[in-house]
Amino acid sequence: MNITDELNKYKSIIDSELEKIMPNEDSLQKKIFEAMRYSIFAGGKRLRPILTLKTSELISGSYEGALKIALSIEMIHTYSLVHDDLPPMDNDDFRRGKPTNHRVFGEDIAILAGDGLLNLAYETMLKSIPLNREYYKRYISAIREVSKAAGVFGMIGGQTVDIQSKDDVLEEKKLEFIHNKKTSALIEASIVSGAILAGASNEQINNLRCYGQAIGLCFQIRDDILDRIGDKKMLGKNIGSDETNHKLTYLSIYGMENSVREIQRLNKKAIESLSVFDDKESLFLKELANYLANRKS
Amino acid sequence: MNITDELNKYKSIIDSELEKIMPNEDSLQKKIFEAMRYSIFAGGKRLRPILTLKTSELISGSYEGALKIALSIEMIHTYSLVHDDLPPMDNDDFRRGKPTNHRVFGEDIAILAGDGLLNLAYETMLKSIPLNREYYKRYISAIREVSKAAGVFGMIGGQTVDIQSKDDVLEEKKLEFIHNKKTSALIEASIVSGAILAGASNEQINNLRCYGQAIGLCFQIRDDILDRIGDKKMLGKNIGSDETNHKLTYLSIYGMENSVREIQRLNKKAIESLSVFDDKESLFLKELANYLANRKS
Repeated sequence: MNITDELNKYKSIIDSELEKIMPNEDSLQKKIFEAMRYSIFAGGKRLRPILTLKTSELISGSYEGALKIALSIEMIHTYSLVHDDLPPMDNDDFRRGKPTNHRVFGEDIAILAGDGLLNLAYETMLKSIPLNREYYKRYISAIREVSKAAGVFGMIGGQTVDIQSKDDVLEEKKLEFIHNKKTSALIEASIVSGAILAGASNEQINNLRCYGQAIGLCFQIRDDILDRIGDKKMLGKNIGSDETNHKLTYLSIYGMENSVREIQRLNKKAIESLSVFDDKESLFLKELANYLANRKS
Repeated sequence: MNITDELNKYKSIIDSELEKIMPNEDSLQKKIFEAMRYSIFAGGKRLRPILTLKTSELISGSYEGALKIALSIEMIHTYSLVHDDLPPMDNDDFRRGKPTNHRVFGEDIAILAGDGLLNLAYETMLKSIPLNREYYKRYISAIREVSKAAGVFGMIGGQTVDIQSKDDVLEEKKLEFIHNKKTSALIEASIVSGAILAGASNEQINNLRCYGQAIGLCFQIRDDILDRIGDKKMLGKNIGSDETNHKLTYLSIYGMENSVREIQRLNKKAIESLSVFDDKESLFLKELANYLANRKS
């Protein structure tokens, strides 16, 4: 398996399905559709929705039933970026090499575009529930998983702690909270929701949850490293911004050597979590863990 | 029936149930809980959740099953106010006589508090679905109704058009869109979701939808009138702000006489929509229509 080919193949699926589902009518509120589409089609890697599809496929052999939830997770991820980039938050001018939403549409529309993406995610997930099939319960359970990860006990909680400059909390404890909530929570939910939708057993769900937590943290630490030593062109954003903004990162607390060692440990843990699955069927998730641990962008 | 006593009684129910459900733990992200609680307990009239409870009661004799959805609707209403008040949007310093969220907590936390309230509304609604009862379908249908009203084809769409200063659209058409989407949509959904949850027939739902649309518009036109001739103290905000901000209102297009006449027409229509229901059982909704048409705050 060539992991980048496989990622590209599934990225195309997500892109074309999003194209179908994102509102685009010529109506009075078309400006909000433009702004939402601008950010959702700004060149994201589609990591989260791909994880949902691939996990679903691992369990049931098919990703069809998980498609709408996967697209919704990408909307939630995108809304969080649009709001995080706003001037009162991280005040970022560029993302993925393009001007951020508020730089193109203004702060007011960017706030509404974020709100619109979050709400559309829920509208889309709610519409996807097959009301007359016994497995409607899986959908509700999966959507609950996503909603918890997105909320004040997940991403929003993580971002809250991240933007708070000073308090008397230990840096290590604070960093762990931010990493777990801000990044890992939705990555974990992407995987777990895909598993639930496909009818995974509790044991399978638990193992996949471990996998998700491990790659989520791994992803974040690699992000911190790339912000220091990455290639600006490949990343599509300036490097060194964490240091300039005095951001709390794994690197700033534990240093480079420990960060690299932690990535290796998490990567090993992720791959071990997959041992209950068929070797061949879980190959993609294994390769993906390795890929994320070593990624350059 | 004394309408204000009845409103106060149900307001107390909503207030105390919200008190139970709004996160309040001493955790790392407690700042976001504080900010969310600040706005949700800032003295709102609780009109929307009361409508949900009362409509549910009209249909089934009980409001218990609609409680969580009612609270969630109030969270959605509150989030929209927090975001609308932000400097890049309406830039309001006061609401209900108290400093707006961003004036107390800063713009960054206010954005997150709004996001948090919207997401918590969905978490709460999703948790309320009784998975093993046949009537779980009613819940999903009611939540879909709310989610549509809250989204880009409802409130967010309305706010988008409201903040756009200039375009080539007829003022009358634009105003109708803003009124229908920005205010009426969630009021209508509050009523319709309460009816659906209680097992209303399609005919009952249609009549209540008409009622909701009529009182929603009536509420908005009355709001516009109060902004011109209301009492600053009773309203808890400055009057004349619509004119200062060159806001498109029913009053600015059609004048006072026509506005008053339109309120009377809508009020009559609202009450007529209730003719399919028992006179005594629908008394509250009738009295409420009259109350909203003549309210001073």
